[in-house]
Amino acid sequence: MTGATLYAALPSPFHPLRGGELKGAIVAFETWGTLNATRDNAILIVTGMSPSAHAASGPLDRSPGWWEPMIGRGRTLDSDRYFVICVNSLGSCKGSTGPASPHPDDGEPYRLRFPAITIEDIADGAAQVASSLGITRLCAVMGPSMGGMTTLAMALRHPPLCPNIVVMSCAARSGAFAIALRSLQRQIVRADPGWNGGNYQHSMDVASGMGLARKLGVATYRSPQEWRERFGRARLPERDADPFASEFQIESYLDAHARRWAGGFDPASYLYLSRAMDWFDLADYGGSVEAGCQQMAVEQALVIGVASDILFPVEQQEEIAEALAAAGARVDFQSLPSIQGHDAFLVDIPRFAPVISRFLDGL
Amino acid sequence: MTGATLYAALPSPFHPLRGGELKGAIVAFETWGTLNATRDNAILIVTGMSPSAHAASGPLDRSPGWWEPMIGRGRTLDSDRYFVICVNSLGSCKGSTGPASPHPDDGEPYRLRFPAITIEDIADGAAQVASSLGITRLCAVMGPSMGGMTTLAMALRHPPLCPNIVVMSCAARSGAFAIALRSLQRQIVRADPGWNGGNYQHSMDVASGMGLARKLGVATYRSPQEWRERFGRARLPERDADPFASEFQIESYLDAHARRWAGGFDPASYLYLSRAMDWFDLADYGGSVEAGCQQMAVEQALVIGVASDILFPVEQQEEIAEALAAAGARVDFQSLPSIQGHDAFLVDIPRFAPVISRFLDGL
Repeated sequence: MTGATLYAALPSPFHPLRGGELKGAIVAFETWGTLNATRDNAILIVTGMSPSAHAASGPLDRSPGWWEPMIGRGRTLDSDRYFVICVNSLGSCKGSTGPASPHPDDGEPYRLRFPAITIEDIADGAAQVASSLGITRLCAVMGPSMGGMTTLAMALRHPPLCPNIVVMSCAARSGAFAIALRSLQRQIVRADPGWNGGNYQHSMDVASGMGLARKLGVATYRSPQEWRERFGRARLPERDADPFASEFQIESYLDAHARRWAGGFDPASYLYLSRAMDWFDLADYGGSVEAGCQQMAVEQALVIGVASDILFPVEQQEEIAEALAAAGARVDFQSLPSIQGHDAFLVDIPRFAPVISRFLDGL
Repeated sequence: MTGATLYAALPSPFHPLRGGELKGAIVAFETWGTLNATRDNAILIVTGMSPSAHAASGPLDRSPGWWEPMIGRGRTLDSDRYFVICVNSLGSCKGSTGPASPHPDDGEPYRLRFPAITIEDIADGAAQVASSLGITRLCAVMGPSMGGMTTLAMALRHPPLCPNIVVMSCAARSGAFAIALRSLQRQIVRADPGWNGGNYQHSMDVASGMGLARKLGVATYRSPQEWRERFGRARLPERDADPFASEFQIESYLDAHARRWAGGFDPASYLYLSRAMDWFDLADYGGSVEAGCQQMAVEQALVIGVASDILFPVEQQEEIAEALAAAGARVDFQSLPSIQGHDAFLVDIPRFAPVISRFLDGL
């Protein structure tokens, strides 16, 4: 969190969907551009599981953000035209209140004392940010991956706020394969002796488990085709004496990702947000995805999927697009041929930017 | 190992490709049917990473084998017509000499003292089985997954023995994605404190790591489409108090697989065979897969792939088929539309059996 980070207070106590309560909880966000006098030029971004609210650089934080090429003067999310807001998810460890935050009773981290967090709670936190800025109708809400689920949940729970949505590489409800992999990631973390039943002292205590879980994530966030083209069977120049040390470049690439991740993300936060993705099911609202969409008031929607995504297959975005259309929204469904799989929204800007620009221009 | 298990002795000492030596090493196998007087009706099967030589039931072991519906009287591998042999891989823990076998010097398990094992060594072990039975030309050699690699290595290193081959759901060289997942599985095993640098006392000491690695295997051996159709988002009837306990049926399915696997397979054996698959590269022989195939003497080949296999994508079987054809073999390439992914050869018998029958009838 830097000088660019702002905070919105949630109602206290805040009652998460699955029970329990939070006192004095806050949600971190950043903004770019200026809210106009009629307060109708705001675009709100909700993120995937791990990013902070720092989606792009700005005068108070010059470091590049996770969606840097998309946000700023003259870019798709043009800060001369829009007031762009990016929200850090409730339950994260990047500024918003989460399991790593101090419990008000004793000042020690909540860890597993934190109440269960759902995508719906994250959506309510993001809606509170808009509300705290005096915004009652967003120009658009958008999010990739978990952020796409949060976007759907915002439209469901705050219909007047969310007339226009952009959902990317996500699902109305996770499929069995994605659930299996996330469940396994959570087990890998908990198998680390440093996890200690959730009573770890520092996130680095769980570095090994978090690193292994991250590798499984990174390996599946891209497509087998991309890994083949980028790394093939390229070897490392030298090996250490360990007979099972990394030999292939793909292995050292994952090693580097694991090192950057371990210690940088709170293990309990990771487990809470990962589980929230498994739980979310738009069909819980009325018995079907279409019924869920009928509780929204979406006027225009852009739904983007990527053909090479193995975690959130493009059929899942098609399901969202069809359900939104059946509920009366004007829907643009885009299946992009990027080879970068689930992560394409981060890197295949040449394909994502034009379809988002066209959608925003049409609002 | 049961009364049905036979053993062939390797030359002693046996010198594996990457160095070291084994004294008194043996290779386990089973047979069905009768070798004819001209010794030319033998079909030899080499297996995927984990199975034993018990591919089917027989008079000395009535328990069903891993390829039960394929082998026996009147079946595709008809024991009235063929002499069917299934070989347990050198380095495995299912009868053949491997890291769990007693070291001749001290009677303690080899563990990491075992020399590095390659697909080529496994192929030599299987060839030795044929040789010990007085067979100089097999009617056919076949194998799925790792067994497909072993089949290619047998044809490469023992051309007169292997005029006809059937390779299924494998690769001439593993791609980056498969390497990434196997590397991660090996790391998960070694992260288990019970691994103890390879000095575990009993395979159950590494049950947790082996179970997690197995789950990653099972999850990726089938296709996301099959998991969706079989499990969807179906829940378990009840949950235990652990906030991260399994909630979805797909999770408990993987739990059950992990329990069956842990303790039943030697952790060091698993690491050795997994690494052997990463290493194998037919292009090491002459600079390309095609050059590798030119060192074989394959007359007829059947190459089967499955469109939904994410570990060994069908393009990899196509590469094998094209290289074999370019090297002069008569090749039948079959891309099957099974939804069972990499494991289809085990379960989609209605699709696999007819194409294998037709191939054998045409020999």
